[in-house]
Amino acid sequence: MRFKFEVNEDNTISHHQNRGMDLEDEINKTNEFYRLNDIALVYKRHTSIKVVRCHDKKITEAYFDEPSTTDYYGVYKGKYIDFEAKETSSTTVFPLANLRDNQIEHIKNVIQNGGISFLIVSFTNLEKYFLLSGEKLLTLIRTNERKSIPLDVFLKEGKEIKRGLNPPLDYIKLI
Amino acid sequence: MRFKFEVNEDNTISHHQNRGMDLEDEINKTNEFYRLNDIALVYKRHTSIKVVRCHDKKITEAYFDEPSTTDYYGVYKGKYIDFEAKETSSTTVFPLANLRDNQIEHIKNVIQNGGISFLIVSFTNLEKYFLLSGEKLLTLIRTNERKSIPLDVFLKEGKEIKRGLNPPLDYIKLI
Repeated sequence: MRFKFEVNEDNTISHHQNRGMDLEDEINKTNEFYRLNDIALVYKRHTSIKVVRCHDKKITEAYFDEPSTTDYYGVYKGKYIDFEAKETSSTTVFPLANLRDNQIEHIKNVIQNGGISFLIVSFTNLEKYFLLSGEKLLTLIRTNERKSIPLDVFLKEGKEIKRGLNPPLDYIKLI
Repeated sequence: MRFKFEVNEDNTISHHQNRGMDLEDEINKTNEFYRLNDIALVYKRHTSIKVVRCHDKKITEAYFDEPSTTDYYGVYKGKYIDFEAKETSSTTVFPLANLRDNQIEHIKNVIQNGGISFLIVSFTNLEKYFLLSGEKLLTLIRTNERKSIPLDVFLKEGKEIKRGLNPPLDYIKLI
Protein backbone atom coordinates (compact mmCIF):
# COMPACT_ATOMS: atom_id res chain seq x y z
CA MET A 1 0.00 0.00 0.00
CA ARG A 2 1.38 3.39 -0.93
CA PHE A 3 0.71 6.81 0.45
CA LYS A 4 1.27 10.22 -0.97
CA PHE A 5 1.91 13.09 1.42
CA GLU A 6 1.01 16.57 0.36
CA VAL A 7 1.64 19.85 2.19
CA ASN A 8 -1.32 22.19 2.16
CA GLU A 9 -0.98 25.95 2.09
CA ASP A 10 -1.56 26.21 5.85
CA ASN A 11 1.27 23.66 6.35
CA THR A 12 -1.06 20.86 7.41
CA ILE A 13 -0.50 17.54 5.72
CA SER A 14 -2.88 15.50 3.60
CA HIS A 15 -2.34 11.78 3.07
CA HIS A 16 -3.74 10.35 -0.11
CA GLN A 17 -3.75 6.64 -0.45
CA ASN A 18 -2.71 5.99 -4.02
CA ARG A 19 -4.24 9.25 -5.23
CA GLY A 20 -2.47 10.49 -8.31
CA MET A 21 -0.21 7.46 -8.39
CA ASP A 22 -1.19 6.17 -11.80
CA LEU A 23 -0.48 9.40 -13.64
CA GLU A 24 2.70 9.88 -11.62
CA ASP A 25 3.91 6.38 -12.50
CA GLU A 26 3.21 6.94 -16.18
CA ILE A 27 5.10 10.22 -16.20
CA ASN A 28 8.00 8.73 -14.24
CA LYS A 29 8.26 5.86 -16.73
CA THR A 30 8.11 8.30 -19.62
CA ASN A 31 10.88 10.42 -18.07
CA GLU A 32 13.00 7.31 -17.58
CA PHE A 33 12.53 6.52 -21.28
CA TYR A 34 13.56 10.09 -22.18
CA ARG A 35 16.64 9.88 -19.96
CA LEU A 36 17.81 6.53 -21.30
CA ASN A 37 17.38 7.73 -24.88
CA ASP A 38 18.95 11.17 -24.34
CA ILE A 39 15.71 12.88 -25.31
CA ALA A 40 15.28 14.96 -22.16
CA LEU A 41 16.25 14.99 -18.49
CA VAL A 42 13.17 15.48 -16.33
CA TYR A 43 13.04 15.17 -12.54
CA LYS A 44 10.32 14.90 -9.96
CA ARG A 45 10.61 17.86 -7.63
CA HIS A 46 11.07 16.73 -4.05
CA THR A 47 9.22 18.39 -1.21
CA SER A 48 11.36 20.44 1.11
CA ILE A 49 11.68 18.58 4.40
CA LYS A 50 13.52 20.04 7.36
CA VAL A 51 15.32 17.24 9.18
CA VAL A 52 15.70 17.91 12.91
CA ARG A 53 16.78 14.59 14.33
CA CYS A 54 18.12 11.44 12.80
CA HIS A 55 19.40 8.23 14.19
CA ASP A 56 21.70 6.08 12.07
CA LYS A 57 19.84 5.85 8.75
CA LYS A 58 16.43 6.69 10.19
CA ILE A 59 15.02 10.21 10.40
CA THR A 60 13.03 10.43 13.63
CA GLU A 61 11.96 14.05 13.60
CA ALA A 62 11.33 16.20 10.56
CA TYR A 63 8.84 18.72 9.23
CA PHE A 64 7.49 19.66 5.84
CA ASP A 65 9.14 22.98 5.17
CA GLU A 66 7.08 24.74 2.54
CA PRO A 67 4.39 23.78 0.06
CA SER A 68 6.03 22.55 -3.11
CA THR A 69 5.56 24.36 -6.40
CA THR A 70 5.08 22.14 -9.47
CA ASP A 71 5.71 18.41 -9.77
CA TYR A 72 8.34 18.18 -12.48
CA TYR A 73 11.19 20.18 -14.00
CA GLY A 74 14.02 19.50 -16.36
CA VAL A 75 15.87 20.19 -19.56
CA TYR A 76 14.78 19.50 -23.13
CA LYS A 77 17.14 20.58 -25.93
CA GLY A 78 18.71 23.14 -23.60
CA LYS A 79 15.35 24.65 -22.61
CA TYR A 80 14.02 24.66 -19.07
CA ILE A 81 10.71 22.82 -18.80
CA ASP A 82 8.40 22.79 -15.79
CA PHE A 83 5.02 21.18 -15.30
CA GLU A 84 2.33 20.08 -12.92
CA ALA A 85 0.48 16.79 -13.35
CA LYS A 86 -3.09 16.42 -12.12
CA GLU A 87 -5.79 13.80 -12.23
CA THR A 88 -9.50 14.47 -12.09
CA SER A 89 -12.35 11.98 -11.81
CA SER A 90 -14.73 14.50 -13.38
CA THR A 91 -15.81 13.74 -16.94
CA THR A 92 -16.70 17.32 -17.79
CA VAL A 93 -14.37 19.82 -16.07
CA PHE A 94 -11.00 20.28 -14.41
CA PRO A 95 -11.59 22.14 -11.11
CA LEU A 96 -9.14 25.00 -10.68
CA ALA A 97 -9.18 24.40 -6.92
CA ASN A 98 -6.67 21.66 -7.81
CA LEU A 99 -4.06 24.37 -8.25
CA ARG A 100 -2.77 26.37 -5.31
CA ASP A 101 -1.93 30.07 -5.43
CA ASN A 102 1.79 29.46 -4.95
CA GLN A 103 1.72 27.08 -7.92
CA ILE A 104 0.11 29.72 -10.14
CA GLU A 105 2.72 32.21 -8.93
CA HIS A 106 5.47 29.73 -9.79
CA ILE A 107 4.05 29.18 -13.28
CA LYS A 108 4.10 32.95 -13.84
CA ASN A 109 7.73 33.12 -12.71
CA VAL A 110 8.77 30.29 -15.02
CA ILE A 111 7.14 31.97 -18.03
CA GLN A 112 8.62 35.35 -17.04
CA ASN A 113 12.08 33.77 -17.21
CA GLY A 114 11.50 32.19 -20.61
CA GLY A 115 10.89 28.65 -19.37
CA ILE A 116 8.38 26.24 -20.91
CA SER A 117 5.53 25.76 -18.46
CA PHE A 118 2.58 23.43 -18.86
CA LEU A 119 -0.01 21.31 -17.14
CA ILE A 120 -0.76 17.65 -17.79
CA VAL A 121 -4.32 16.70 -16.86
CA SER A 122 -5.62 13.17 -16.78
CA PHE A 123 -9.39 12.73 -16.96
CA THR A 124 -9.23 9.31 -15.34
CA ASN A 125 -12.78 8.20 -16.10
CA LEU A 126 -12.44 9.15 -19.76
CA GLU A 127 -8.91 7.77 -20.06
CA LYS A 128 -7.92 11.00 -21.74
CA TYR A 129 -4.77 13.05 -21.15
CA PHE A 130 -4.19 16.65 -22.12
CA LEU A 131 -1.30 19.06 -22.16
CA LEU A 132 -2.17 22.71 -21.67
CA SER A 133 0.45 25.46 -21.86
CA GLY A 134 1.09 27.63 -18.81
CA GLU A 135 0.27 30.74 -20.86
CA LYS A 136 -3.16 29.36 -21.78
CA LEU A 137 -3.76 28.25 -18.22
CA LEU A 138 -3.04 31.76 -16.89
CA THR A 139 -5.36 33.31 -19.48
CA LEU A 140 -8.13 30.87 -18.53
CA ILE A 141 -7.68 31.62 -14.83
CA ARG A 142 -7.89 35.35 -15.54
CA THR A 143 -11.02 35.08 -17.68
CA ASN A 144 -12.83 32.06 -16.29
CA GLU A 145 -15.39 32.84 -13.68
CA ARG A 146 -16.56 29.30 -13.25
CA LYS A 147 -13.50 28.19 -11.29
CA SER A 148 -13.01 25.21 -13.53
CA ILE A 149 -11.82 24.46 -17.06
CA PRO A 150 -14.35 22.53 -19.18
CA LEU A 151 -13.22 19.47 -21.12
CA ASP A 152 -14.16 21.33 -24.33
CA VAL A 153 -11.45 23.87 -23.63
CA PHE A 154 -8.83 21.11 -23.32
CA LEU A 155 -10.04 19.68 -26.64
CA LYS A 156 -9.79 23.08 -28.33
CA GLU A 157 -6.92 24.83 -26.56
CA GLY A 158 -4.88 21.89 -25.27
CA LYS A 159 -3.14 19.00 -26.97
CA GLU A 160 -4.21 15.44 -26.39
CA ILE A 161 -1.47 13.06 -25.29
CA LYS A 162 -2.05 9.61 -26.73
CA ARG A 163 -1.38 6.69 -24.39
CA GLY A 164 1.40 4.44 -25.65
CA LEU A 165 3.35 1.39 -24.51
CA ASN A 166 6.78 2.91 -24.01
CA PRO A 167 6.93 5.75 -23.35
CA PRO A 168 3.43 5.59 -21.81
CA LEU A 169 2.78 9.34 -22.19
CA ASP A 170 4.91 10.89 -24.89
CA TYR A 171 4.28 14.51 -23.93
CA ILE A 172 7.58 16.08 -24.93
CA LYS A 173 6.85 16.33 -28.64
CA LEU A 174 3.73 18.36 -27.86
CA ILE A 175 5.37 21.20 -25.95
CA MET B 1 23.25 25.97 15.58
CA ARG B 2 22.61 24.60 12.14
CA PHE B 3 23.28 21.20 10.69
CA LYS B 4 23.55 20.03 7.15
CA PHE B 5 22.64 16.44 6.37
CA GLU B 6 24.21 14.77 3.40
CA VAL B 7 23.52 11.32 1.98
CA ASN B 8 26.63 9.40 1.03
CA GLU B 9 26.77 6.99 -1.84
CA ASP B 10 26.35 3.97 0.46
CA ASN B 11 23.20 5.65 1.87
CA THR B 12 24.78 6.46 5.21
CA ILE B 13 24.31 10.00 6.44
CA SER B 14 26.90 12.63 7.27
CA HIS B 15 26.07 15.57 9.51
CA HIS B 16 28.11 18.68 8.96
CA GLN B 17 27.77 21.42 11.50
CA ASN B 18 27.66 24.61 9.48
CA ARG B 19 29.85 23.14 6.74
CA GLY B 20 29.19 24.81 3.46
CA MET B 21 26.67 27.17 5.02
CA ASP B 22 28.38 30.40 4.12
CA LEU B 23 28.62 29.69 0.41
CA GLU B 24 25.10 28.28 0.44
CA ASP B 25 23.76 31.43 2.12
CA GLU B 26 25.50 33.66 -0.39
CA ILE B 27 24.11 31.71 -3.31
CA ASN B 28 20.62 31.64 -1.80
CA LYS B 29 20.70 35.41 -1.33
CA THR B 30 21.94 35.86 -4.88
CA ASN B 31 19.14 33.65 -6.21
CA GLU B 32 16.59 35.65 -4.21
CA PHE B 33 17.96 38.82 -5.82
CA TYR B 34 17.67 37.22 -9.27
CA ARG B 35 14.09 36.11 -8.60
CA LEU B 36 12.92 39.48 -7.30
CA ASN B 37 14.48 41.25 -10.28
CA ASP B 38 13.25 38.75 -12.90
CA ILE B 39 16.82 37.90 -13.86
CA ALA B 40 16.62 34.15 -13.30
CA LEU B 41 14.70 31.57 -11.30
CA VAL B 42 17.08 29.27 -9.45
CA TYR B 43 16.14 26.68 -6.84
CA LYS B 44 17.99 24.64 -4.28
CA ARG B 45 17.44 20.98 -5.07
CA HIS B 46 15.87 19.16 -2.13
CA THR B 47 17.04 15.74 -1.09
CA SER B 48 14.61 12.94 -1.75
CA ILE B 49 13.17 11.79 1.58
CA LYS B 50 10.77 8.88 1.83
CA VAL B 51 8.22 9.63 4.52
CA VAL B 52 6.90 6.48 6.23
CA ARG B 53 5.06 7.77 9.25
CA CYS B 54 3.83 11.16 10.25
CA HIS B 55 1.79 12.44 13.13
CA ASP B 56 -0.07 15.72 12.77
CA LYS B 57 2.59 18.09 11.37
CA LYS B 58 5.53 16.04 12.58
CA ILE B 59 7.28 13.38 10.52
CA THR B 60 8.32 10.61 12.91
CA GLU B 61 9.79 8.08 10.51
CA ALA B 62 11.49 8.80 7.23
CA TYR B 63 14.55 7.79 5.23
CA PHE B 64 16.89 9.48 2.83
CA ASP B 65 15.90 7.98 -0.48
CA GLU B 66 18.81 8.47 -2.82
CA PRO B 67 21.94 10.62 -2.93
CA SER B 68 21.11 13.98 -4.44
CA THR B 69 22.72 15.10 -7.68
CA THR B 70 23.75 18.76 -7.82
CA ASP B 71 22.77 21.57 -5.46
CA TYR B 72 20.97 24.05 -7.71
CA TYR B 73 18.93 24.16 -10.90
CA GLY B 74 16.80 26.71 -12.64
CA VAL B 75 15.99 28.81 -15.66
CA TYR B 76 17.91 31.75 -17.08
CA LYS B 77 16.58 33.36 -20.27
CA GLY B 78 14.77 30.14 -21.12
CA LYS B 79 17.87 27.99 -20.68
CA TYR B 80 18.18 25.22 -18.12
CA ILE B 81 21.03 25.84 -15.69
CA ASP B 82 22.40 23.39 -13.16
CA PHE B 83 25.29 23.67 -10.74
CA GLU B 84 27.07 22.33 -7.72
CA ALA B 85 28.54 24.64 -5.07
CA LYS B 86 31.56 23.54 -3.05
CA GLU B 87 33.83 25.03 -0.45
CA THR B 88 37.42 24.04 0.16
CA SER B 89 39.75 25.15 2.94
CA SER B 90 42.76 24.31 0.76
CA THR B 91 44.69 27.29 -0.60
CA THR B 92 46.19 25.38 -3.51
CA VAL B 93 43.81 22.75 -4.90
CA PHE B 94 40.19 21.64 -5.13
CA PRO B 95 40.10 17.92 -4.26
CA LEU B 96 37.98 15.97 -6.75
CA ALA B 97 36.92 13.62 -3.95
CA ASN B 98 34.44 16.42 -3.20
CA LEU B 99 32.40 15.26 -6.18
CA ARG B 100 30.60 11.93 -6.15
CA ASP B 101 30.29 9.63 -9.16
CA ASN B 102 26.55 10.16 -9.45
CA GLN B 103 27.13 13.93 -9.54
CA ILE B 104 29.61 13.57 -12.41
CA GLU B 105 27.10 11.34 -14.20
CA HIS B 106 24.40 13.97 -13.68
CA ILE B 107 26.65 16.73 -15.06
CA LYS B 108 27.22 14.59 -18.18
CA ASN B 109 23.47 14.11 -18.59
CA VAL B 110 22.76 17.84 -18.26
CA ILE B 111 25.36 18.69 -20.92
CA GLN B 112 24.11 15.89 -23.18
CA ASN B 113 20.65 17.51 -23.09
CA GLY B 114 21.93 20.99 -23.89
CA GLY B 115 21.74 22.38 -20.36
CA ILE B 116 24.26 24.80 -18.88
CA SER B 117 26.24 22.99 -16.20
CA PHE B 118 28.87 24.47 -13.93
CA LEU B 119 30.61 24.32 -10.60
CA ILE B 120 31.05 27.17 -8.13
CA VAL B 121 34.08 26.67 -5.88
CA SER B 122 34.85 28.82 -2.88
CA PHE B 123 38.45 28.78 -1.63
CA THR B 124 37.41 29.90 1.83
CA ASN B 125 40.89 30.78 3.14
CA LEU B 126 41.68 32.85 0.07
CA GLU B 127 38.22 34.43 -0.08
CA LYS B 128 38.12 33.63 -3.77
CA TYR B 129 35.23 32.22 -5.77
CA PHE B 130 35.37 30.57 -9.17
CA LEU B 131 32.94 29.35 -11.74
CA LEU B 132 34.09 26.41 -13.85
CA SER B 133 31.98 25.04 -16.71
CA GLY B 134 30.80 21.44 -16.58
CA GLU B 135 32.52 20.75 -19.90
CA LYS B 136 35.89 21.91 -18.52
CA LEU B 137 35.34 19.98 -15.32
CA LEU B 138 34.72 16.75 -17.25
CA THR B 139 37.83 17.31 -19.37
CA LEU B 140 39.92 17.91 -16.23
CA ILE B 141 38.56 14.76 -14.59
CA ARG B 142 39.39 12.75 -17.72
CA THR B 143 42.94 14.10 -17.99
CA ASN B 144 43.90 14.88 -14.42
CA GLU B 145 45.74 12.11 -12.66
CA ARG B 146 46.29 14.05 -9.47
CA LYS B 147 42.70 13.73 -8.27
CA SER B 148 42.51 17.44 -7.64
CA ILE B 149 42.25 20.67 -9.62
CA PRO B 150 44.99 23.21 -8.83
CA LEU B 151 44.08 26.83 -8.10
CA ASP B 152 46.10 27.79 -11.21
CA VAL B 153 43.64 25.92 -13.38
CA PHE B 154 40.72 27.86 -11.88
CA LEU B 155 42.60 31.11 -12.58
CA LYS B 156 43.25 30.10 -16.19
CA GLU B 157 40.21 27.98 -17.16
CA GLY B 158 37.57 29.27 -14.76
CA LYS B 159 36.02 32.67 -14.20
CA GLU B 160 36.45 34.50 -10.95
CA ILE B 161 33.23 35.63 -9.26
CA LYS B 162 33.73 38.92 -7.49
CA ARG B 163 32.10 39.25 -4.08
CA GLY B 164 29.52 42.04 -3.97
CA LEU B 165 26.98 43.49 -1.58
CA ASN B 166 23.75 42.55 -3.31
CA PRO B 167 23.79 40.16 -5.03
CA PRO B 168 26.69 38.73 -2.99
CA LEU B 169 27.86 36.38 -5.78
CA ASP B 170 26.76 37.59 -9.18
CA TYR B 171 27.55 34.37 -11.06
CA ILE B 172 24.87 34.45 -13.74
CA LYS B 173 26.61 36.90 -16.03
CA LEU B 174 29.63 34.58 -16.18
CA ILE B 175 27.88 31.49 -17.50
